[in-house]
Amino acid sequence: VRSLLSEPEFAFDYGRSTAKQRERTLARVQRLAEEGLGNLSYPAFAGGARDDLGFLAVFETLACHDLSVLVKYGVQFGLFGGSIFQLGTERHHREYLPRVGTLELPGCFAMTETGHGSNVREIDTTATYEPETGELVIHTPHEGARKDYIGNAARDGRMATVFAQLQVGGDGYGVHAILVPIRDEQGEPLPGVRIEDCGHKLGLNGVDNSRLTFDQVRVPRGNLLDRFASLSEEGTYSSPIPSEGKRFFTMLGTLVGGRVAVALGSNSAAKVGLKVAIRYGERRRQFGPSGGAEVRLMDYLTHQRRLLPRLAQVYGLDFALKGLARAYAEAGKEGASPENADAERRRIEALAAGLKAVASWNCIETLQDCRECCGGQGYLSVNRLADLKRDTDVFATFEGDNTVLLQLVARGLLGDYKRQFSDMNVFGFARYFARRAASAVAELNPVTTRRTDPEHLRDRDFQLAAFRWRREHLQGSVARRMKKRLDAGMDSFEALIEVQDHVVALARAHVEEVILTSFAEGVAGLAGEGPEAGLQEILGRLCDLYALERLEADSGWMLQQGYFEGAKARAVQEQVTALCREVRPQAWHLVEAFGIPEASLAAPIAL
Amino acid sequence: VRSLLSEPEFAFDYGRSTAKQRERTLARVQRLAEEGLGNLSYPAFAGGARDDLGFLAVFETLACHDLSVLVKYGVQFGLFGGSIFQLGTERHHREYLPRVGTLELPGCFAMTETGHGSNVREIDTTATYEPETGELVIHTPHEGARKDYIGNAARDGRMATVFAQLQVGGDGYGVHAILVPIRDEQGEPLPGVRIEDCGHKLGLNGVDNSRLTFDQVRVPRGNLLDRFASLSEEGTYSSPIPSEGKRFFTMLGTLVGGRVAVALGSNSAAKVGLKVAIRYGERRRQFGPSGGAEVRLMDYLTHQRRLLPRLAQVYGLDFALKGLARAYAEAGKEGASPENADAERRRIEALAAGLKAVASWNCIETLQDCRECCGGQGYLSVNRLADLKRDTDVFATFEGDNTVLLQLVARGLLGDYKRQFSDMNVFGFARYFARRAASAVAELNPVTTRRTDPEHLRDRDFQLAAFRWRREHLQGSVARRMKKRLDAGMDSFEALIEVQDHVVALARAHVEEVILTSFAEGVAGLAGEGPEAGLQEILGRLCDLYALERLEADSGWMLQQGYFEGAKARAVQEQVTALCREVRPQAWHLVEAFGIPEASLAAPIAL
Repeated sequence: VRSLLSEPEFAFDYGRSTAKQRERTLARVQRLAEEGLGNLSYPAFAGGARDDLGFLAVFETLACHDLSVLVKYGVQFGLFGGSIFQLGTERHHREYLPRVGTLELPGCFAMTETGHGSNVREIDTTATYEPETGELVIHTPHEGARKDYIGNAARDGRMATVFAQLQVGGDGYGVHAILVPIRDEQGEPLPGVRIEDCGHKLGLNGVDNSRLTFDQVRVPRGNLLDRFASLSEEGTYSSPIPSEGKRFFTMLGTLVGGRVAVALGSNSAAKVGLKVAIRYGERRRQFGPSGGAEVRLMDYLTHQRRLLPRLAQVYGLDFALKGLARAYAEAGKEGASPENADAERRRIEALAAGLKAVASWNCIETLQDCRECCGGQGYLSVNRLADLKRDTDVFATFEGDNTVLLQLVARGLLGDYKRQFSDMNVFGFARYFARRAASAVAELNPVTTRRTDPEHLRDRDFQLAAFRWRREHLQGSVARRMKKRLDAGMDSFEALIEVQDHVVALARAHVEEVILTSFAEGVAGLAGEGPEAGLQEILGRLCDLYALERLEADSGWMLQQGYFEGAKARAVQEQVTALCREVRPQAWHLVEAFGIPEASLAAPIAL
Repeated sequence: VRSLLSEPEFAFDYGRSTAKQRERTLARVQRLAEEGLGNLSYPAFAGGARDDLGFLAVFETLACHDLSVLVKYGVQFGLFGGSIFQLGTERHHREYLPRVGTLELPGCFAMTETGHGSNVREIDTTATYEPETGELVIHTPHEGARKDYIGNAARDGRMATVFAQLQVGGDGYGVHAILVPIRDEQGEPLPGVRIEDCGHKLGLNGVDNSRLTFDQVRVPRGNLLDRFASLSEEGTYSSPIPSEGKRFFTMLGTLVGGRVAVALGSNSAAKVGLKVAIRYGERRRQFGPSGGAEVRLMDYLTHQRRLLPRLAQVYGLDFALKGLARAYAEAGKEGASPENADAERRRIEALAAGLKAVASWNCIETLQDCRECCGGQGYLSVNRLADLKRDTDVFATFEGDNTVLLQLVARGLLGDYKRQFSDMNVFGFARYFARRAASAVAELNPVTTRRTDPEHLRDRDFQLAAFRWRREHLQGSVARRMKKRLDAGMDSFEALIEVQDHVVALARAHVEEVILTSFAEGVAGLAGEGPEAGLQEILGRLCDLYALERLEADSGWMLQQGYFEGAKARAVQEQVTALCREVRPQAWHLVEAFGIPEASLAAPIAL
């Protein structure tokens, strides 16, 4: 991928019309397919190697370069091909994957509707089975049920995986995925299919998004992707998963790969931004002591305070995301042990949701800081930050809206909690809080609460304990607030809305705990001697910066809960400043270590 | 302006090439000039009415619509024309302003160089006077001295106000402004002038920015804008302001109008964003209790928490900015009393700097929240948020980088402080801190610190006292930190860098105090009876939300300093949530009240 990206075909240019951008993006994705990068994760008969980690590595690397290519690549091979692979059976795999992997059959993933994005379960497109003809009739009953923002659909897609409510003989069986041809070989929409271009967007203008409307479009029964549910010729429905809810969430679980990919891609984009801003900050000088040389931007505390905690977050996320990617690839292997598979699948889903939310927001905020830290230069497209910002902005809301995803994560945590204490009755709660109170007393002893020395603050055990305490405390507090409302007879949905801010705070605290744990394990895993000793020290300091800056950002809450006293909060703040100064001489090397090819960096201010 | 903006000429379209966007932007600015909106602030002989408030109102209204037009309008009539008016003398006014105001003479404002943006005093372009020929020779000595990002220069500008180091007979007199023709009537660059297009940008692609390089370009002596410094034919330099530093800052003071305009424009863009997001949030439903109707997005607490404090900030800024605009227009009037003029000028400069920084950052953050709150719809250009985001992003760094501006504000506050206590010697400090300690005891009495009832938290006097206490406390703390370092023999620049984060915090606290004061005065000024009574109640609640949400955001600091106890911080947080719920039913009306014309709103999701 790296050598491909340095080909002239992949050189950056700016200010092209939407039509030109789309044309160029398709050509680039074709080039990737030619090099055998489209079918990496598919089985051998489709030219692939079932290499999920390889596929994610391609994604991670493309995200340093052209994000329209990234997204079109992801839609074609990840979402469209992935839905066939994950939701279809061998028949579908053999018929379609070889052509999907080479881009001979360009396709779309048509899940979202104008009226339903986050709440996919309530989509209104219907797929009605007619036993007389053996056909499924795909239909858009109203404007709000149009498939919307569908990538690859406005210009190139020939087929779409369409999610629709399956109806057989007057009964509804919930959301299912069906392969629906949308264009003929000449690229003309097929009868009954209306394709409306979504037009110009904030970014990703190389990706051709559109709305799809189906007017009684007929496809053979065999087009139902039938891994989790099948339909006999007579119209008898059967599924290995009896509960409709569980079936729905199992199907939705196939989205996890997309979330892992978006999280990795977000972090790549943030890395490029930091490399541009830190290289520029090392060279650019402005103002200085009277009579002396002007000072490098990177020597200003405000500059360090903006960029270096972001650098620490990107490193922390990198450790956590690589762990997620490995677990995801492992779970996808044929021989994965079935007994823990279910729990592990749930763990990966929650982790992917949480890390996708945190990584994409961190990317957006990091690129904003980088853009501003480069002043007018940062505003020029040639310096890369402009397109990175525009293109990644949608990462906060696609593949799952971040706020919705964090609630998903929290629900998982509250579920664990529920399991742990049999049920949410008063007795269980009383026992739990009694236990928590004891542990709180232990952790809140005045010596710890008041200790402000650097040794204590840089002690990884203190940091991990603080993150754990915060998450546990929020977990208990959310559960208690929910319970109070449920006991008072409030509907559970209404109760959730009332405590939504606490729910989101809990999820963020959990994800940050995961990141710190991964970061700490990664640092601890380096050899304390030999050439790695220096690396361990440098990354250890960066890990301190991550931990303390996150605690500083949340110091209002830590103080409110009595986990910090005022002097401690002040000491944390001072340590963050001290760590910025200590990390600063390594900043250039820390961004070099990302290994971003110069062809992808491209920014004149960074070369 | 409103009726102009609804002409077909001003209709939105997207995805055009850079060349097309520039062409359209020029045509639109020409249309504004035809309607007599270009020369509004100029004297009558130039077709104007010396109407600074009118000019700002045009700017504020244009910012609801097409921001490329806004910026090109601002460059031509505000910066280029304004520099002639503010820095030139009647001769220049009569010769140029009539043609500037009609756009017959398109011009540029060439201050920033590649190597010097914020630190204008160190620019390297030279203007050397030759008494033999009576000419000034304008020269770019090296690449870093190129004029950079100059608006109106890549395509349309015929003349530029060039800032350069004036040199006469081997002596340097500092930065001065000189009118330099750059293109002939056919639009070709004049001999010695090199014009390099800056190319595609994150936004504002209708504005033609470029770099200008001068190779010994000669202009008559009379082209020196000589209000604050003149040059005799023989080369004798004279100025009514003897100090070079003071002269420089007086000339730079002419930038204040630009900052007032950008602050107003930022708030307009934020208003449009909020109107789009709140209207969409009122209609869009997603998820809901089982069996019940789906819930409106605006009924979700997370949604309220993101949008409603932003709405409160925009209202607060509106009151503060209107006050600033009035003071600015007043100070520009001929008859303004000269005795207080200097102090008032300084006050307006600091206020413009601080409000520009806070308003532009608030605009950027608000539009980010609005974009995300509209999901995929928010990413489509047709729904307006995309261009608003792209175009306003540069507001954080142009017309003064926000971080630099906040330091300017803080320097003013520390200056006041210095004046107040004679000098920064230990004695003065000791006295000051003794006095402050007494007042701190008074304000930090446990009854106040612990009061958590809504009446107390919604008491405007409490809110104002808390904001004042925070600013005063930071003022003392920064002064003390600076003094400690200066006493230890540290260079003042180095000392400033070490405490830079506190300096910026002080400036923000000051600006927020200004905003709350203006907001409170505005609300108090409404009649408590009759039709205005309801308005006073609604805006009063919004003002509470502004005050308490800002305190919540800074609760870590308030707790650290002991101004809050834990229970109070929690109570503030609960009040913010309660206020969001109370304000929510008025949200639709509060964005209606902005009076944004439907032609400017334009977003299908908001209509």
